[in-house]
Amino acid sequence: MKERLWQLRQKVKEKSPLVHNITNYVVMNTTANALLAIGASPVMAHAEEEVEDMVQIANSLVINIGTLSNAWVNAMKLALKKANQLNKPVVLDPVGAGATPYRNRVITELLSEGTFSVIRGNASEIMALASEQHKTKGVDSIASSDNAESAAKLLNKQYGSVVCISGATDYIIKNDKVVKISNGHALMAKVTGMGCTATALIGAFIGTGEDTFISVAAAMAIMGIAGELAFSVSNGPGSLQMNFLDKLYNMTEEEFFKTLKIEY
Amino acid sequence: MKERLWQLRQKVKEKSPLVHNITNYVVMNTTANALLAIGASPVMAHAEEEVEDMVQIANSLVINIGTLSNAWVNAMKLALKKANQLNKPVVLDPVGAGATPYRNRVITELLSEGTFSVIRGNASEIMALASEQHKTKGVDSIASSDNAESAAKLLNKQYGSVVCISGATDYIIKNDKVVKISNGHALMAKVTGMGCTATALIGAFIGTGEDTFISVAAAMAIMGIAGELAFSVSNGPGSLQMNFLDKLYNMTEEEFFKTLKIEY
Amino acid sequence: MKERLWQLRQKVKEKSPLVHNITNYVVMNTTANALLAIGASPVMAHAEEEVEDMVQIANSLVINIGTLSNAWVNAMKLALKKANQLNKPVVLDPVGAGATPYRNRVITELLSEGTFSVIRGNASEIMALASEQHKTKGVDSIASSDNAESAAKLLNKQYGSVVCISGATDYIIKNDKVVKISNGHALMAKVTGMGCTATALIGAFIGTGEDTFISVAAAMAIMGIAGELAFSVSNGPGSLQMNFLDKLYNMTEEEFFKTLKIEY
Repeated sequence: MKERLWQLRQKVKEKSPLVHNITNYVVMNTTANALLAIGASPVMAHAEEEVEDMVQIANSLVINIGTLSNAWVNAMKLALKKANQLNKPVVLDPVGAGATPYRNRVITELLSEGTFSVIRGNASEIMALASEQHKTKGVDSIASSDNAESAAKLLNKQYGSVVCISGATDYIIKNDKVVKISNGHALMAKVTGMGCTATALIGAFIGTGEDTFISVAAAMAIMGIAGELAFSVSNGPGSLQMNFLDKLYNMTEEEFFKTLKIEY
Repeated sequence: MKERLWQLRQKVKEKSPLVHNITNYVVMNTTANALLAIGASPVMAHAEEEVEDMVQIANSLVINIGTLSNAWVNAMKLALKKANQLNKPVVLDPVGAGATPYRNRVITELLSEGTFSVIRGNASEIMALASEQHKTKGVDSIASSDNAESAAKLLNKQYGSVVCISGATDYIIKNDKVVKISNGHALMAKVTGMGCTATALIGAFIGTGEDTFISVAAAMAIMGIAGELAFSVSNGPGSLQMNFLDKLYNMTEEEFFKTLKIEY
Repeated sequence: MKERLWQLRQKVKEKSPLVHNITNYVVMNTTANALLAIGASPVMAHAEEEVEDMVQIANSLVINIGTLSNAWVNAMKLALKKANQLNKPVVLDPVGAGATPYRNRVITELLSEGTFSVIRGNASEIMALASEQHKTKGVDSIASSDNAESAAKLLNKQYGSVVCISGATDYIIKNDKVVKISNGHALMAKVTGMGCTATALIGAFIGTGEDTFISVAAAMAIMGIAGELAFSVSNGPGSLQMNFLDKLYNMTEEEFFKTLKIEY
């Protein structure tokens, strides 16, 4: 398993998948940078007039509802359907699920109009998705990822998507398989959009065409290890954000295997 | 007074107020990061369909017109009215006031349709707001904050808002009270959105539920001190932006009191 | 020539041209920061209600279609026409030209409805513009800038714009004049929006009112040298992005002349 994860990281560099992001304004710059740092090719496009054409040339699609509005949601649906038609993998980031009825409605629509290869959220988002009764406090996680495990299993059963709960320990869930990764550092929660970055990296890894479940595990492992190593040379969230990108780019095989904390 | 400012800084960390930002595209990432660094919880949402629900769960609202358009202005008005109804504090950042008739019109509408707890701008914006005759040069300040003091007093009288003029010396004005803070560094003007960050931090401090006037002073003190300390270890605006976030996060009590330059 | 380039760099600092950007969401923050670091004054505004007024007070206009949609394209056209009327210089960044039919259509419309002083793109974008038959891979360059030279000459002949192809070697082309600049570093391609930043800097330099061709060469020289010097103190794309801004700000005359690699 461990060797496979590092192989996938190399695969991203070799194939440089084009990842089409329909994502939120807050993280466009940082997720594009993370995708470039890892060796993928980001493109951001949201016009209804072009999203289907963009999906056509892309290797994967990232849908992130962080700063949603109706025009963007329409574009997400068009892109999602086209990606499904073309059998291109799609990852959903249900940012702030549970925070407002509008968000819940949009997520429900997206889940009913197309198929997602992967859903990634924090514990409270995953639980909100599963229950639609749980209120999140904005976009931060207020629940531990352990509590969300059963919610994730429910979602996986209902929608068929690999479900990833990110947190101090990341859970990657498909059927009866669970991978747990305990890398990263608490300070990462003080950098905006780290969750969205995880989702974007998942977009890169599933864009290689390799097995989805392992791709998600690989993305989360790289994410957590880069954050953990970056933390060790940072003075706060500003330098952590910078060092994280450097480490995504220059992480060595030795660093990867020495730092990886995984259970499966 | 000085002790009170530091207490408020601690309060932000303890309460972690949820700050709802309807702000401009340029600064979404950096202001979210500043809010996280200070210990607050940022959420960015602008859809007319959800802003009222978001205000409901938020502790304060930030309205920043930097990259305004009609749909966003409508959302600002909805959110403003809901915040007023619920007695939640709102801060206005009239970015580029005076630069175009459209901006002036929108600001006039916002000020007439709701109540702002705080208005923060640079000297030229505050004067433009007061006179609607003064043309700003884009979003940079071309007038000293001293000249704007009488304009700020006028605005405070007219709208009841605490008015903050940021600049080499920041003025915080309410009725006959004036607090002046002379921290910060000129290089901060070479980092985009530092004014917007000040406004976002004000959003965090007023989100604690403490006295508005003191909250604004505390936010501006923390802002200026973080910038000043960050400058001392920076080589230019790029590293200043990073070090500023680190310092917002790790500023010590000793650093605060040793650096604070305040008159009241 | 070389001395002239440095003189123009100083000119930007003295005049601090106001650069009106209608640009993409991904790079708004980073291009605003680059403009501030170089001594220019950025403003981002895209509402149809105000773009003409903003052009009126600006010294130059940057049109960048990276994350285009219809409302924004309408604003671009209004701003472009107003800038043409007022004889204010305009630079076009045709991000992702060739990637989708919509992008191609919009570019064709823009080029037919107004005049651009400068067009800057990577090799694949310039070739797509010239041929409209060449498909780009998202927004990254897949063709060398040498191959694009004839495409650039064609565009220059057809539209009268100075054409700049950025890449390992930048080409600046007007009639039978070609300037080649070979500064920069390959790692710059791993920082999102470096092309957009080059375009924004061109906006600053042409905003001085000096000769357009030389202004573009000066912008590209400063861009490449800042990137090259920043690389030498960076560990990856994260620190490169930061050091690049620092170097734009604090580049010395000696550094400039020692590093400049130019052919003309």
